[in-house]
Amino acid sequence: MADHTVTSFDQELKGLTTKIAEMGGLAEGLVGDAVTALTRMDTELAHKVMLTDARLDRLQQEIEERAILVIARRQPMALDLREIMASLRISNDLERVGDLAKNIAKRVTAMQGNFAAKKLVIGVEHLSEIAMEQLKDVLDAFALRDDSAALQVRKRDDEIDALYTSLFRELLTYMMEDPRNITFCTHLLFCAKNIERIGDHATNIAETVYFVVTGEQLTTERHKSDDTSTLAGPDAK
Amino acid sequence: MADHTVTSFDQELKGLTTKIAEMGGLAEGLVGDAVTALTRMDTELAHKVMLTDARLDRLQQEIEERAILVIARRQPMALDLREIMASLRISNDLERVGDLAKNIAKRVTAMQGNFAAKKLVIGVEHLSEIAMEQLKDVLDAFALRDDSAALQVRKRDDEIDALYTSLFRELLTYMMEDPRNITFCTHLLFCAKNIERIGDHATNIAETVYFVVTGEQLTTERHKSDDTSTLAGPDAK
Repeated sequence: MADHTVTSFDQELKGLTTKIAEMGGLAEGLVGDAVTALTRMDTELAHKVMLTDARLDRLQQEIEERAILVIARRQPMALDLREIMASLRISNDLERVGDLAKNIAKRVTAMQGNFAAKKLVIGVEHLSEIAMEQLKDVLDAFALRDDSAALQVRKRDDEIDALYTSLFRELLTYMMEDPRNITFCTHLLFCAKNIERIGDHATNIAETVYFVVTGEQLTTERHKSDDTSTLAGPDAK
Repeated sequence: MADHTVTSFDQELKGLTTKIAEMGGLAEGLVGDAVTALTRMDTELAHKVMLTDARLDRLQQEIEERAILVIARRQPMALDLREIMASLRISNDLERVGDLAKNIAKRVTAMQGNFAAKKLVIGVEHLSEIAMEQLKDVLDAFALRDDSAALQVRKRDDEIDALYTSLFRELLTYMMEDPRNITFCTHLLFCAKNIERIGDHATNIAETVYFVVTGEQLTTERHKSDDTSTLAGPDAK
């Protein structure tokens, strides 16, 4: 009878991890579709992304409810409690990744028809490739409970931030060159910002994976390489 | 002895609510300071905001740990469980509000020295007044467990979205008028977006308050009045 209870608890914990994997896969797909919709100016695909995000929201609530029930029923300690807390945190990050993907998709409609500016989208494509690799790598790290892989994801966030910074600068120059570029580039800037933030969530998840494996919270302020907040711009005094 | 245990549980629940109130007050102050730093171009105040955000992060972790311990120890049901889940959700929203305030503060440095553009900041001031009222009103609604007050906050989000949309349009025209405005207006746009998102978090908290009081999740997609994602702009074909 005791064995049966232990297996049941294990099953509940496994169930949480499986739900996270499901949510992770869905979030990855959503980001990929949002970026594809952006680079191809595909409003149909964009619309699909906007609808699919709701599934992520439901999964997040489901995981939250499951996690709380497990805590209430099993009163887990130590490692098990960390696992459950990790599920809660990761589901929050993934839900936000879905929101960011949805926001990118929403902007696709506004950017329609501006063919000359397609070249500008290439920089965003590159940025999103790295962000999506980060998401995939960190979800693998979670599945394998690999803390060093998690640390690598955390470190690679610098690459995304540096790329975002240079993309930001580039878009500013296009806007200054020709006022007709301004609206399009503004939307693209917001998209790029969203992608950079998807990268940040991958890094959050990396810190959670590290916490699950080692019990240690990486609370020191990560070095932020994104200098755009303080960017005075070419036209500043 | 049984009475002592019940009181202790009540104290733990009250403790969570008190922590939320503390976190809420801190978040409100942070948003106010960030907006003041922006409108006055006050880099010192901006710096203070960036430092103070860390306190919010710590409070959020504290509330998370407390909530999980309460769930594990007391195995709460029904209303009590809703209260604890609410604390978790609200602490997440408030932590993000702090991040948004910090991001606004970070941009203040980049916007220095552009005196001609001070008039542009007035629209953002108005937007932030409403956002801060929303934050205050919803935290009051939580303290009083007032579900109709929460619904009013939720409804008023339309006002913020409409104001953000018109501000977005206005800033676009300034950018098109004079390339020297572009960098400043871009930063201001991001700040306005952050303030609009602070308003969204107030609305999230409103939905959580409603949930605590009625047990009902407001899951229907709130009507979003922010049309800027689909804004093709004055220069669109």
